[in-house]
Amino acid sequence: MQYKIGDIIEIIAKGTNYIGKVMPNSTKETVFLKLKSGYNIGISKDEIKSIRLLNKAGKKDVNVQKKFEHKKGLPTIAILHTGGTLASRVDYETGAVSSRFKPEELIELFPEINEIANIKSVFISNMFSDQMVFNDYIKIAKAVLKEADSEGIKGIIIGHGTDTMHYTAAALSFMFEHIKIPVILVGSQRSSDRGSSDAPMNLICAIEFINKTSFHGIAICMHESHSDDACLILPGTKTRKIHTSRRDAFKAINDKPIARVNYKTRTVELFKKVEKEKPIHNILKPKLETKVGILKTYPNMSSSVIKAFKGYKGLVIEGTGLGHMPIAESNENKKIFNEIKKLIKSGCIVVMASQCIFGSVNMNVYSIGRDLLNLGVVPAEDMTAETAYIKLAWLLANYKRTQVKELITKNLRGEIKDRILPDEYLTTNDLDQRNA
Amino acid sequence: MQYKIGDIIEIIAKGTNYIGKVMPNSTKETVFLKLKSGYNIGISKDEIKSIRLLNKAGKKDVNVQKKFEHKKGLPTIAILHTGGTLASRVDYETGAVSSRFKPEELIELFPEINEIANIKSVFISNMFSDQMVFNDYIKIAKAVLKEADSEGIKGIIIGHGTDTMHYTAAALSFMFEHIKIPVILVGSQRSSDRGSSDAPMNLICAIEFINKTSFHGIAICMHESHSDDACLILPGTKTRKIHTSRRDAFKAINDKPIARVNYKTRTVELFKKVEKEKPIHNILKPKLETKVGILKTYPNMSSSVIKAFKGYKGLVIEGTGLGHMPIAESNENKKIFNEIKKLIKSGCIVVMASQCIFGSVNMNVYSIGRDLLNLGVVPAEDMTAETAYIKLAWLLANYKRTQVKELITKNLRGEIKDRILPDEYLTTNDLDQRNA
Repeated sequence: MQYKIGDIIEIIAKGTNYIGKVMPNSTKETVFLKLKSGYNIGISKDEIKSIRLLNKAGKKDVNVQKKFEHKKGLPTIAILHTGGTLASRVDYETGAVSSRFKPEELIELFPEINEIANIKSVFISNMFSDQMVFNDYIKIAKAVLKEADSEGIKGIIIGHGTDTMHYTAAALSFMFEHIKIPVILVGSQRSSDRGSSDAPMNLICAIEFINKTSFHGIAICMHESHSDDACLILPGTKTRKIHTSRRDAFKAINDKPIARVNYKTRTVELFKKVEKEKPIHNILKPKLETKVGILKTYPNMSSSVIKAFKGYKGLVIEGTGLGHMPIAESNENKKIFNEIKKLIKSGCIVVMASQCIFGSVNMNVYSIGRDLLNLGVVPAEDMTAETAYIKLAWLLANYKRTQVKELITKNLRGEIKDRILPDEYLTTNDLDQRNA
Repeated sequence: MQYKIGDIIEIIAKGTNYIGKVMPNSTKETVFLKLKSGYNIGISKDEIKSIRLLNKAGKKDVNVQKKFEHKKGLPTIAILHTGGTLASRVDYETGAVSSRFKPEELIELFPEINEIANIKSVFISNMFSDQMVFNDYIKIAKAVLKEADSEGIKGIIIGHGTDTMHYTAAALSFMFEHIKIPVILVGSQRSSDRGSSDAPMNLICAIEFINKTSFHGIAICMHESHSDDACLILPGTKTRKIHTSRRDAFKAINDKPIARVNYKTRTVELFKKVEKEKPIHNILKPKLETKVGILKTYPNMSSSVIKAFKGYKGLVIEGTGLGHMPIAESNENKKIFNEIKKLIKSGCIVVMASQCIFGSVNMNVYSIGRDLLNLGVVPAEDMTAETAYIKLAWLLANYKRTQVKELITKNLRGEIKDRILPDEYLTTNDLDQRNA
């Protein structure tokens, strides 16, 4: 029997009948079906007894359409689409990935979503997150506010590219002084049309978390491990992508995940207390200073690199270890010291984070750190460079210079913790051990 | 009885007698002794029956001195001292740490070292590694060559600050085209005079590894976990400091550790094959190009940051995800694209690594990656930005431009692997699980 990608077909194999949409990763030997449950299945052609065409691709699928009807008793969740791999298809000729799904198509791909929530799809953009600029954050924040202020929205999911998802999460965390509902950023490491995509599970776990907890605030939902057991809900200001390709690329940094959502049992395990009292109003301060930068230091660097930040209002230095950078011993290092001095004298707020990623800076231990403190460099404490960068840009746009210097080292949105616990390093495995 | 820091005393407490040197972390309530075995012990004053002074501080300690005699049957290991926390003392008035130990003093602190090897102490410098420049790498490399070429040296240990120890390890890895003996970089996260210092265990494990294997090449030896069970021997080109303060701050990136040294049993467990055939000669190519830089990209960055690298021969970009950076969508991003284009046209070799740290770049998946490849950007594959930076500096000083572009993506010293295995992500815990 002939069938095409996108057709809805019924297959009888091994005594069972399977109804689903033919996926683009089907080969000469195997048909891949997207089942109604949202799961994908690969069926070897040798095992197929019969195939029946139920609905041609492109034709309106009555069954799928039905699912979009508002179901009583289900919460309404707004999905804001910004693009990224989640909204991408594989081009099976070139093997390349491009952003092409429309919001409705995406939801249609994962019919199970419509069984656990009424989805309101909102299109914002269709871009990869590595191209986002501050204006995109502001656009997203305003769209979030609109939905959060609407009647009857239980929570918001933002479909987002993974490259800079942690920067966006930090930006929304600071810009929303108060938010009444959960805002969960969800990405995927494999495009949504692939059988192996992590997109449906990440979306479903985010919805289950919204449905089953009273959390409000900004978080990220991604796979906990490379298997499809559970997703983690990760804190918006203390999370980072630390692997280029794995589905468990996002880890909490110097912090615990907020929760684990078990994909099989649909249970939510909270690792942090969720504030029960919700704010009365959503308050958004969507301004970000653009004259801010990040500078990673390295051995043998030149002082000319610092000069590039002349006229900047803020700079986050990603130093080494506890917050050091080359400022002594060699002549060029001493020039770097003078350039930092000039920058600070010009009014630029210079913040020190660490390229170690994990752990806190502590500039009181070694003389280099103390020299930098004396110069006026402000420690980022246990913030990642990415969170410190976004916080600095947000503070500079909303507060006076003296206030900014003070607020940088103060915890505003969970971004600074007094103490990092032993199990907050490479958290996933430690959590597993704790629960073993 | 009166005693001072540095005195050798005998204490009788709980029916046992303890002989050792009074440590600076002793308090009014507790005496901390450095025992002959190298271990530290804290004895509550309530429990002390009697104290006897054996040798005053500053006076030549006959017992300790004896240990420095050449012992037959023990291998000779050269310890090259460059400084860092390992060579540091805590100033108990200010709580600050400074580099102050002389090589002989350091070995004296850990008498056990002299029971497992004859130590040849070589002073190179007394600096913190965050201040090191390429000239320091060359100085260290030449000192390594001198020892490696000497008769009867079984292996070399380099005492080194931890901040940039992975940069130095990469530099030595590339500069030594051949090395006949093991060269192990050892640091510590707590200064050597503190009871809680990780220095003695790291040094002893490095010595045991040299004594008990036929490994030759460059590696790092540091704690495996936060407990004092084992050290890992980590590959010189695939290791990074990923925590600011923990003793298990160093992790293999996209690779396995070379070995585990059990501190209790003194057994060495190899995770990688060690080439039995050793090179006949040590070959050092100690040149490094200085006009090379690292640039971390971030959302909303300005094109002016790229201009700072005008005239550079090489630049490693630490992009996002699989190797992306802002070059499209916004006007400023498009300007960045043009600046990269100019830089490449001027002859600069631009290499793309990922700020994710773990995983490989893959610039064929998304259009942004392909646009950068078309522009002439060279992927760093699964190298860290730090290793790619050192490799680029070394290649540019030793090869022609066209050769450099080719060699960057080729494996020369274990820095590029065809495939990253699932257990090469956050390795420590996975290793534990494997052995459980």
